[in-house]
Order: sequence, then C-alpha cells, then structure tokens
Amino acid sequence: MVGGGQLARMTHEAGIPLGIRFKILSDTPQDSAALVVNDVVIGDYRDLDTLRAFARGCDVITFDHEHVPTEHLRALESDGIPVRPGPDALVHAQDKGVMRARLDEIGAPSPRHRIVSDPADVAAFADEVGGFPVILKTVRGGYDGKGVWFVRTPEDAAAPFHAGVPVLAEEKVDYVRELAANIVRSPHGQAVAYPVVESIQVDGVCDTVIAPAPNLSEALAGEAQALALRIAKELDVTGHLAVELFETTDGRILVNELAMRPHNSGHWTQDGAVTSQFANHVRAVLDLPLGDPRPRARWTVMANVLGGDYPDMYAAYLHCMAHDPQVKIHMYGKDVKHGRKVGHVNTYGDDLDDVLERARHAAGYLRGTITA
Amino acid sequence: MVGGGQLARMTHEAGIPLGIRFKILSDTPQDSAALVVNDVVIGDYRDLDTLRAFARGCDVITFDHEHVPTEHLRALESDGIPVRPGPDALVHAQDKGVMRARLDEIGAPSPRHRIVSDPADVAAFADEVGGFPVILKTVRGGYDGKGVWFVRTPEDAAAPFHAGVPVLAEEKVDYVRELAANIVRSPHGQAVAYPVVESIQVDGVCDTVIAPAPNLSEALAGEAQALALRIAKELDVTGHLAVELFETTDGRILVNELAMRPHNSGHWTQDGAVTSQFANHVRAVLDLPLGDPRPRARWTVMANVLGGDYPDMYAAYLHCMAHDPQVKIHMYGKDVKHGRKVGHVNTYGDDLDDVLERARHAAGYLRGTITA
Repeated sequence: MVGGGQLARMTHEAGIPLGIRFKILSDTPQDSAALVVNDVVIGDYRDLDTLRAFARGCDVITFDHEHVPTEHLRALESDGIPVRPGPDALVHAQDKGVMRARLDEIGAPSPRHRIVSDPADVAAFADEVGGFPVILKTVRGGYDGKGVWFVRTPEDAAAPFHAGVPVLAEEKVDYVRELAANIVRSPHGQAVAYPVVESIQVDGVCDTVIAPAPNLSEALAGEAQALALRIAKELDVTGHLAVELFETTDGRILVNELAMRPHNSGHWTQDGAVTSQFANHVRAVLDLPLGDPRPRARWTVMANVLGGDYPDMYAAYLHCMAHDPQVKIHMYGKDVKHGRKVGHVNTYGDDLDDVLERARHAAGYLRGTITA
Repeated sequence: MVGGGQLARMTHEAGIPLGIRFKILSDTPQDSAALVVNDVVIGDYRDLDTLRAFARGCDVITFDHEHVPTEHLRALESDGIPVRPGPDALVHAQDKGVMRARLDEIGAPSPRHRIVSDPADVAAFADEVGGFPVILKTVRGGYDGKGVWFVRTPEDAAAPFHAGVPVLAEEKVDYVRELAANIVRSPHGQAVAYPVVESIQVDGVCDTVIAPAPNLSEALAGEAQALALRIAKELDVTGHLAVELFETTDGRILVNELAMRPHNSGHWTQDGAVTSQFANHVRAVLDLPLGDPRPRARWTVMANVLGGDYPDMYAAYLHCMAHDPQVKIHMYGKDVKHGRKVGHVNTYGDDLDDVLERARHAAGYLRGTITA
C-alpha cells in the first residue's frame, strides 16, 4: 500500500488475520502505519524510481491516498504490477474536473457545475445557477475542506485561482444532510454495498457518522447504493469506493465527492459490520470473494477524535474505558496537533440516542472538550 | 511481549486500535508475530542479557508463552520493569506441581493427584484412586498433549521419568466434556469473566470451541466463573487467565490446566464478544479499565485450522470466502506443517447447528480434509 497514514494502519490491522504480507511506502518512520507495520519502505511516492523499487515483488499495489501521479501508476502497470484501483479509475478521485465530466456522461446526478477561468467567469456561473453563494474547488489536491471555497461575492472569488490549478465551480446545493454510499468491488466484478450512512460535518471535517442513515427512505437508500455500484462499474473501480452524497431538500441525491480507498464514512464497519471496509478492500484488491457487508447492530455511530488538549492519551483512556466498557477506541498513533484527526470511536446498540451520546462523550473526552 | 507466536500476532492486532507501541522478542524473523509487528527483537528468551536488553524502555512486559525462567522474571522486576503476570503468579502456569499444591491450599477442586517418584509409586497411586488408567504429566514443559501420558499399566509408567523432571500423577476423571472459564484481571483488581465455553479436543489438541457451552446449567457456569475469578485473585494473576475444566459425570467441575496469557479457548472472543481476550489482556497489563466481555451473538464457534494439504492458502480462501461470506478467517502466517495450528475460523449466529457446521466446513476446507 502506498502511503503510511491511518488508512494503511487499519488496512494492516484487517489484513493480519487474512495472513496478508503487507508492505507500505511511507513518508517517514513516524507515520501512523509505519509504527505498526513490519515491512516499511521510507520514500517519496512522487518519485518513480522509489515507487518502482517499492513495487518490485508485490502481488498488487493499492493506496492509502489518491496522490500518486497517474503517469507513475501507468509505469507500474507497464512493469507488470497490478495497480488496484487502476490509474484510469483513480483519476476520477484525483481530479474533480474529470470526475464531474465522467459522472455527467454516465448520467449520475451532480450539483450544477463547470470549470471557470477567472472571477468574472465565476460571477457568470453564479448567474446561471441563480446567484451567489457558489462553491469553488481546485480540481486537484483538496481534502477535508482544504482546496474548497464558499464564495459569497465576485470579490471572494479570486483566491482559488492563485494556485494555478483549474478551478471547478459548483452550485450551492440546498441539502438536508450529507450521506455516503460505501461499496467494494473486486476485479472479478463482484460487489457489495454497505448500508447508506449519514455523515455529519463540522467546519468541513467529518465529525460523526450514523449507520444506517436515520429516517432514510428505503427507496432513496436503494437509489444511493445502486448509484454507487453503477459508478464503480462504469469507472472500473477496484476496492473500496465511497460516494459522498447530498440529500437535497427536494428529496434527491447528488454526488458530492468520490474516494477510492477505505473512507472515514466507513470506519463504523470495523465494529458495526460483519466485514469491515478494510477487510473487504484487502479482499477486493487480491481478487478474493468479498465478505458480508451487513450491519451487526441496529445502530452504529462513529465519532472522530480530533487533536485537542491531551498530548498523552493515558488519562483520557482511563476515563473513557471506565465510563463505557463497550466503546471501541481506534487511535492512529499520531502526535496530537490541534484539529488533526488522531483517532475515532465506534459505539453500537439498539437506541440511537444512547449510541450517539456515548460516541460523542468518548470522542469529546479523548479530545479534551468534555472533562467530566 | 516475550514470544513471537500467534498469540503475540493477535495481541498486536488488538493493540493497534489502542495506539499501543508493541515490541516483541521473537526466536526468528519468520515467527508468526515477527511477520506483522514493526518493532521486533530477535533473540533467545532463556538468555537473561537478551531479555534485559529487550525489556529496556518497555512500560510493561507480558508473554506469548509461559517458558521464561522464573529467576529471569525476578531479575527484570529488580531492574524496575513491571512483569505482568508476575513470576509468583506465572509459576503456577509453568509448574503443574506448584499449581496443584496451590489449588489444594485455596480449596479449588482438582482431580486427585500427587507427585510420584517411579513406576512403583505410580502403581501405588493407581491403587489409591481406584486403579489404572492414570494420567502422568511432567511438571514443566508440556502443552497440547505433549508431556502428558495416559498410563494403563505399571509397565507403561516408565517413559515420563526419563526426562529427569518431577512427574505428577492424576486420576483419570470421568468427565462428560471439557469446559474453559476465561477471565481477565488488572493490577487494579478489576476483573471480567467471559461466558464459560465448551472445548472439544481431538488427539489432545483443541479442535472446536463453542461459546457459550451448550446446556450448561447456570449454577455450574456461575461456579466456574467464580472459581476462575478466585484463582486469579488468590494467585495474583494479571492479564488473561484460562482455567481449563472437566465437567464430571457427577456434575462437578475440576481444574485441568491453567494458562496465564490469551488462550485458544478464548479465540472466539475476537468476533463473538464486545471486547476480545487480546484487547482485554492488553488493557489489563497496562492497568487500563477492562472492556465488556459479553457475547455479541447467541452462539459463536471457533474451529482450529491444522496444517494439512494446502501449503498455499489462496485456492482454499477462494472457496471458503465464496461459500460463506460471514466466516471470519484468522491465519497465523505460519508455514504449513502437518498437524500444526496454522489458524482458526470463527462463525456466529442464532442456530448452533448451522454455526458449528459452517465453522467445521471452513476449517476442514482450509486444512484440506473437505474439498467440496
């Protein structure tokens, strides 16, 4: 796996029982996965020679992030190394312009959008979609709210153009909430769909995920799953695909983002599903039959732990574990920096209010925003 | 953790989400845990200097096996390194003579037994307990049926004395089945008890575990849990304690063996309990509050995978995973040798017959005894 972040860390955890020999290419020996994986290569994924040396002897290459240059992936394929997802699929998770164009081609519902050339063009786009505000995104390099601008006036529209990357404009959608449809697909063409979840964002960062999404009509849930499966097939995705969605005020779903790797909106599956997204991602990239994606509990809630006031987690652990012997803690071994995702917790049970409260209490305590 | 076997491997897996920096002392780089742990020291646990160098900088030392000499553990404690379980507890899992004497002291029920000095003494012991057959065990060094003799005549009784180790004689108990009571205890004195399980042995090796033990009276189950908790307290055990029991034909329980580490009879907890034995062992040795030991399913079955006809598991994986998308496979990364424990599977559900059948099918297929 290319990348040494928490997704690689948790993929390793899921691969251990499958007897997988797991190797990572990590930026530093202190990266989240590099702390726990046996076979760690330190190097820069942007350097083709490094990537080639890393890939030698691997049965298959997959990813913790979407940042490996497309041409490097093609070079690995030419060397005879299977790359899953492949470069032709992955480009849709790397470039939002390519993603939107392809979704339009296959008739997948998106917010209205187009590539814009300058602030005047943004103003013209705003006119086309009923006025400001609009959303601007650099087509490459954004994540967790970075590379995204919420633009209220033509004067606000200058900043995104400074990076020298094409800029995509999207209408501001009237939505009631965000959903995510997570599916896993193997090269064989087998696919499994997890229950559609609700994803609650705070300041552009995923805060809480509820599985399954409460009060979601069966029809819309089925539509979201079918849409994710169709996108995976049309784009020839291998492995985990997260389709982030808006549920609009008028009852439609629109695709917000795509991620082709295990995803924050699927972390609940570690404790809440028969087979986790990480285990199924491993099974998919190795072309093994996929595991059952069904939930094990009526409700599962995931709450992210952001870096806060506790550099040392031991005291927080004492409280969290004593307060709730059922809470499942997943920490990433990262140095605590303010606002950085350093872990998450999962809770599950029959009563959603209780499950939500327990997840938020544990995450808040680990962060330091709750102290009693 | 001292030792690089599958217990260390699965403890690492359970420690990753807790953000534990896990280091092992392994005999070789090919040992089960050494393949997946980042921080691996290769060395001989019987050598005190090696052990001391390994322990330097560790917050606490625990074990994958019970073979570290007691005097080495005392030396580590003198160096100021917490050893959990400590040498005074661990000796009861190392020396069956010490174990039986101590269990007698605290009034824990054992088969009738005494240390015997020679074959004539074995014959005398047989007379005391109603005649042959009797069981002979070397007090140290036995496991999985090794170091144990089923002796039918005085002439059979010579072999155990050749090792030059004291020999313990035990009556042959009339039992209906074997049970195991697994508990975890922290230095703080907190303890949790898992449901009592039935352990089905084949040729002296654990084959299948059913959780909870079917048709076990609530009274006897409670008695077994209370007994295990009492043994842990009296022997000052830290971490996981497995108490292997006989359920006798006249409705009593008798202690067969003790193990002070995660145990084969607790592997079902990985997929069948809220908190696995491995996670709770880690929490206990770090003196963190313990996790909920309750089952997540009506029935969970664990079946061991012994080395058989498949040196390469890939084809077997294809079948197992396609046949049953719910089966949980746990392989140890070991070279397949005939009869060697190379993995296990867990299944769970509401219908015991179905859950048993699925576990046995998967394990049999991975072993090569079922091919369709």
